[in-house]
Amino acid sequence: MAGALSPATALRLKPALRFFTHIEILTPKLHNSSIPLFRRRNFCSVVTAAISSGEAVEKHKFDDIEKKVREFRRRLRVADIKGGTEEGLDRVGETLVVRGWVRTVRAQSSVTFIDINDGSCLSNMQCVMGSDADGYDQVENGSISTGASVWIEGTVVSSQGSKQKIELKVQKLVVVGKSDPSFPIQKKRVSREFLRTKAHLRPRTNTFGAVSRVRNALAYATHKFFQENGFVWISSPIITASDCEGAGEQFCVTTLIPNSNEGGDSPVSAIPTTESGSVDWSQDFFGKRAYLTVSGQLNGETYATALSDIYTFGPTFRAENSNTSRHLAEFWMIEPELAFADLDDDMACATAYLQYVVQYVLENCKEDMDFFNTWIEKGIINRLTDVVEKNFVQLTYTDAVELLLKAKKKFDFPVKWGCDLQSEHERYITEEAFGGCPVIIRDYPKDIKAFYMRQNDDGRTVAAMDMLVPRVGELIGGSQREERLEYLEERLDNMNLNKESFWWYLDLRRYGSVPHAGFGLGFERLVQFATGIDNIRDAIPFPRTPGSAEF
Amino acid sequence: MAGALSPATALRLKPALRFFTHIEILTPKLHNSSIPLFRRRNFCSVVTAAISSGEAVEKHKFDDIEKKVREFRRRLRVADIKGGTEEGLDRVGETLVVRGWVRTVRAQSSVTFIDINDGSCLSNMQCVMGSDADGYDQVENGSISTGASVWIEGTVVSSQGSKQKIELKVQKLVVVGKSDPSFPIQKKRVSREFLRTKAHLRPRTNTFGAVSRVRNALAYATHKFFQENGFVWISSPIITASDCEGAGEQFCVTTLIPNSNEGGDSPVSAIPTTESGSVDWSQDFFGKRAYLTVSGQLNGETYATALSDIYTFGPTFRAENSNTSRHLAEFWMIEPELAFADLDDDMACATAYLQYVVQYVLENCKEDMDFFNTWIEKGIINRLTDVVEKNFVQLTYTDAVELLLKAKKKFDFPVKWGCDLQSEHERYITEEAFGGCPVIIRDYPKDIKAFYMRQNDDGRTVAAMDMLVPRVGELIGGSQREERLEYLEERLDNMNLNKESFWWYLDLRRYGSVPHAGFGLGFERLVQFATGIDNIRDAIPFPRTPGSAEF
Repeated sequence: MAGALSPATALRLKPALRFFTHIEILTPKLHNSSIPLFRRRNFCSVVTAAISSGEAVEKHKFDDIEKKVREFRRRLRVADIKGGTEEGLDRVGETLVVRGWVRTVRAQSSVTFIDINDGSCLSNMQCVMGSDADGYDQVENGSISTGASVWIEGTVVSSQGSKQKIELKVQKLVVVGKSDPSFPIQKKRVSREFLRTKAHLRPRTNTFGAVSRVRNALAYATHKFFQENGFVWISSPIITASDCEGAGEQFCVTTLIPNSNEGGDSPVSAIPTTESGSVDWSQDFFGKRAYLTVSGQLNGETYATALSDIYTFGPTFRAENSNTSRHLAEFWMIEPELAFADLDDDMACATAYLQYVVQYVLENCKEDMDFFNTWIEKGIINRLTDVVEKNFVQLTYTDAVELLLKAKKKFDFPVKWGCDLQSEHERYITEEAFGGCPVIIRDYPKDIKAFYMRQNDDGRTVAAMDMLVPRVGELIGGSQREERLEYLEERLDNMNLNKESFWWYLDLRRYGSVPHAGFGLGFERLVQFATGIDNIRDAIPFPRTPGSAEF
Repeated sequence: MAGALSPATALRLKPALRFFTHIEILTPKLHNSSIPLFRRRNFCSVVTAAISSGEAVEKHKFDDIEKKVREFRRRLRVADIKGGTEEGLDRVGETLVVRGWVRTVRAQSSVTFIDINDGSCLSNMQCVMGSDADGYDQVENGSISTGASVWIEGTVVSSQGSKQKIELKVQKLVVVGKSDPSFPIQKKRVSREFLRTKAHLRPRTNTFGAVSRVRNALAYATHKFFQENGFVWISSPIITASDCEGAGEQFCVTTLIPNSNEGGDSPVSAIPTTESGSVDWSQDFFGKRAYLTVSGQLNGETYATALSDIYTFGPTFRAENSNTSRHLAEFWMIEPELAFADLDDDMACATAYLQYVVQYVLENCKEDMDFFNTWIEKGIINRLTDVVEKNFVQLTYTDAVELLLKAKKKFDFPVKWGCDLQSEHERYITEEAFGGCPVIIRDYPKDIKAFYMRQNDDGRTVAAMDMLVPRVGELIGGSQREERLEYLEERLDNMNLNKESFWWYLDLRRYGSVPHAGFGLGFERLVQFATGIDNIRDAIPFPRTPGSAEF
């Protein structure tokens, strides 16, 4: 660890500041102090076994130059120290080290309070430093400012403050990396619009740190839910030459446009063309025009009809020029597909999934959720608890239209059978008509839905479903897929879609077709739903929107 | 489930074949038969609670149209039946249902053997059908052929055959979807080259089913390892306008090339240009030229220097015209980044990670690994067990060169200090010099490595490492990152890279810089390593290579 603790910027200026020797003295001391989490964690019980005698004799020749790789150990984090039920009181008296970034410094007459955050949790570690502590000169010369990185050794003591149970009495402080006074995220509140221009630094704020952890928990809970239920994760392709979906909203992927020469120019005349002056796609990387995927569903179906239950979790793209708080050009999608399943199975799976991931976040991100509840959306914990505890209800599109027509509310968009439901309608249904209960609307008119959805016996609706939740509106959309070859071909014909380009999709109906169903969930919408964050650009680390692909 | 079991293609032709009524009779019978896995699995203990009385009175108006969503239940799979330690013998006497696809049919004088696979495991369920069983007419009329999907109810009996402990004595068989005789994957062995042209059907083969399950296990083990160690999953951006990396190998992402009009043409004249005849990128979707990412590392560093430990797991792209068995244009990468860490920490983490995921697969995919051991690479289980059990060794690049110079072996590429190691050198080191033990080579010459790697004190090497494993060669590459602003700026200057475009990356060194390190692992290489599959195109569901982006 010696190298890992060397100061980041001081090497040339102040070689004396490097503290290899300090660390060599410190390490055995820490090992004697019986701090459990400082112990090396052994991931594999045999990893420490000596090289067995059965190995080739030849290798011993090289004993003088080879070295073993040491064991990996999980670092002691602030979350490990303060995250237990006793909030750290069980560690009073222990000497330990924290590493992180300075959030605030408050100098009082006799002591200085330094709040350190390491990103493992929302809480800072409050460090209390007297003028006799090693490294106090760094406080005096102003090196300890907001944004600086530090290494602090101290003793856990119970705190007099009301905001935390414990604090760290500093014995030694080392500045690892100073923070230039231009650090843009000072203590004063900064707007989320401003922070989008500092996407590389915004995870160092309370809000974006919390969003990152909850986003991570939602992703892991997604994998856990599907894995525990026997679903296989499939990576659907990102680049696709298959023009099954509406190409108008797709990004083109190409190597035909010459790369920037010295001046950064891309002369159009260098693009290969056919005789008619059209781009000659046959010379492109893939030999034909290629796009970024808008959905992995059709590919997912090929694996569901082999492995039974699968899910995708990957990025998808829309080249829509929508500058709204609900649209991204690049977003992550979760798309499970269930074989031998109908729309009822699909709705049941979507409901169980949503309840599982929301419950997981409520249980595993308590501190972050309390933060959102206080600062971002008051009442969000109750709203999410409702989702976990209440029965989801389903009603048909036809009944939903009837309900909206009977509503005493005036809508901007008039309702009639056959129209797509607008956000105002969806929110009325879930927030008002059903008092905050998630609602699934099913059996939509066939004319407003995609070609692959299974036609119902009435001939005018399809086995589609949308899950509506309070505040967000539509969160999940799914359907049973048309597994009957004749129906699917007829539908492609009626929609003027090119059957030949769907040859492989139709093959699934030629060879052992099965009823199957699935749904899609925009992951950033789920993050918005679970955190209360208004703008979807704050629900993903580096948002891509019209005019913006920085970082 | 009624709808889910309706035959796929028969609706128009033979309405009498639908078996709603059958299911209605069957369901209660199954519920009485005490088959544990048929029970509904409750993911959330409160999901069955009645809608509480506290809800808005208003909603009761709609009681007549709303319905509860029923609970999700995990389907009984062949893996559930045969996967236990008793290989199904504990279920003898039970009546249950399997759903899947017919692999083989063998008619004997008195009985017909039908092997069913549902993708949950390599094993088929052998179903034995007498002529008195319900649905035997389907056998007689040839509907039960390879590739057909079926629903079979039967009783578990112990098997006389040597290949399985149990089989299913069929009481009732329903053809869900017939398989056209043109089904391209018949029993005779087909080449993997041929199967690449049938990527939508190849998961129905033993090999690709097993690869899919092992790939899935490796992905889940990856998430488990990092999550259990406090790493946060970060989605690094896929589209990026940041031209930090070598643009020559990057795909361009654009909406400037007009979309196919009726004839599918894309006239070059319609591309917006500047006065000088260059593509006018300011009119593109993102307002500048955008690319597909080649690595999420730089973005990952921004989150590691806020949250301490992070990992990415997402797709990356190379527009290299490499038609080899080791290259894909689109592949998934795992890129962890550790803050307050040096190269030793990085090597330790990479080692623990690899041992963890390999051990996970050996423990959780026994049947598939036995298959690979027999049919794909004899000895693979021993090779992987070595990885888990042996100590990884490290040696410096300088020592590795010395070792190669002393080797009695003749290499095609001569070795001297400063050259990049070739595959033959790497394989000699790990396979011959160290007898199958994974080897990490560290401290490479600075001139053959990337700008962001941390300069060692000798001034001519950097803190980089490559992990070599038998058979595959380089599997992981990593480094400690240059955290010292002056060194990094000097390096960018020396390499003629544009400092301005790295403003945000340099900011990480201006504001609380910390020593940090990370590595990258190509996920498909890992799949090759763990399955023995020769060609990387068989390690991903839908491979993208020069000239090929089908499906």
